[in-house]
Amino acid sequence: MAEGSDDIQALIAQMARLPGLGPRSARRLVLHLIRKRSGQMIQLARLLENVAQGSRECLTCGNITDRDECAICADPARATGELCVVEDVADLWALERGRAFRGRYHVLGGTLSALDEIGPEDLGIPGLVDRIARDRVTEVILALNATVDGQTTAHYIAEALAGSGVAVTGLAQGVPIGGELDYLDDGTISAALRARRRL
Amino acid sequence: MAEGSDDIQALIAQMARLPGLGPRSARRLVLHLIRKRSGQMIQLARLLENVAQGSRECLTCGNITDRDECAICADPARATGELCVVEDVADLWALERGRAFRGRYHVLGGTLSALDEIGPEDLGIPGLVDRIARDRVTEVILALNATVDGQTTAHYIAEALAGSGVAVTGLAQGVPIGGELDYLDDGTISAALRARRRL
Repeated sequence: MAEGSDDIQALIAQMARLPGLGPRSARRLVLHLIRKRSGQMIQLARLLENVAQGSRECLTCGNITDRDECAICADPARATGELCVVEDVADLWALERGRAFRGRYHVLGGTLSALDEIGPEDLGIPGLVDRIARDRVTEVILALNATVDGQTTAHYIAEALAGSGVAVTGLAQGVPIGGELDYLDDGTISAALRARRRL
Repeated sequence: MAEGSDDIQALIAQMARLPGLGPRSARRLVLHLIRKRSGQMIQLARLLENVAQGSRECLTCGNITDRDECAICADPARATGELCVVEDVADLWALERGRAFRGRYHVLGGTLSALDEIGPEDLGIPGLVDRIARDRVTEVILALNATVDGQTTAHYIAEALAGSGVAVTGLAQGVPIGGELDYLDDGTISAALRARRRL
């Protein structure tokens, strides 16, 4: 039993299974926590337990929350008629950090994928179409990743909404802020060139 | 409140303070845990609490354990007369994983450092000298890091033990297993050359 006690070994093994961590970083992390155990470790245990017991999906949009409806869906000021469709809760969080969007969200929970047999029903796309009619949405912004699967999904949703009267938009593609042309891929450069704008 | 709930935000902030993690990897980790919350997260919380409440330093050697005396100090088979001095518990664990050493350990908890004002008393070196006499140690292996501070500390301990009758040894320096000469630093190559052996 090299690592102190059975509990310590089990903790390291659990930590090592988390994304981005491996056995070496898990050991380092656990040793760090043991050294400052008085405060940080107990607090971390409590928070993990609270979050594990308290969090669930917002019944309306799929965001993670500790109530039936998330803070964004519950906020009347965000009923702007704009609905931003994202792949994942992480994407919703990223957009919220940007503070540029004041409407509401819809989390798909994935992308269409023939390979993984994920179809429109698995992503709740029929439910999305219903929600758009019910909530008087005027614009659907497809903020999906610029990957093949993301763009296939965006295309499918745009088709499904054709004729429903809502405007369907996508994020602009171009040079990221602070980006250097020399380091950008050819696809991004040609997209930015095609979408050039008058200054 | 972008990230779900106050507890989720607090959990991400706590995680982001751990060594090797930052805000981005902490968010990714917490989202991963929330998605599989049923099992993994509760288990992780329980383990953290057990380890936080159960672990302490071995009174004899400084290893981390859940008893007064660690499993190594409590094992009579390991009273070989060999005492391996390491800087840190992580180093002890690394040596135990190697399964090459069957004696006992002494964890210094750091290295001598004039800059950080860490002197022999802070590392318990007088206590180490006492322990060597009491436990009938015949060989002290200084398994300290091959850094300036590590080697200064090794030198100091070797001096302190001169005349006590115990053999003082250090780890061999040379080419690591699987190492390619072209990628090794000059210091390692010259050390390996000086310590060359007949095949």
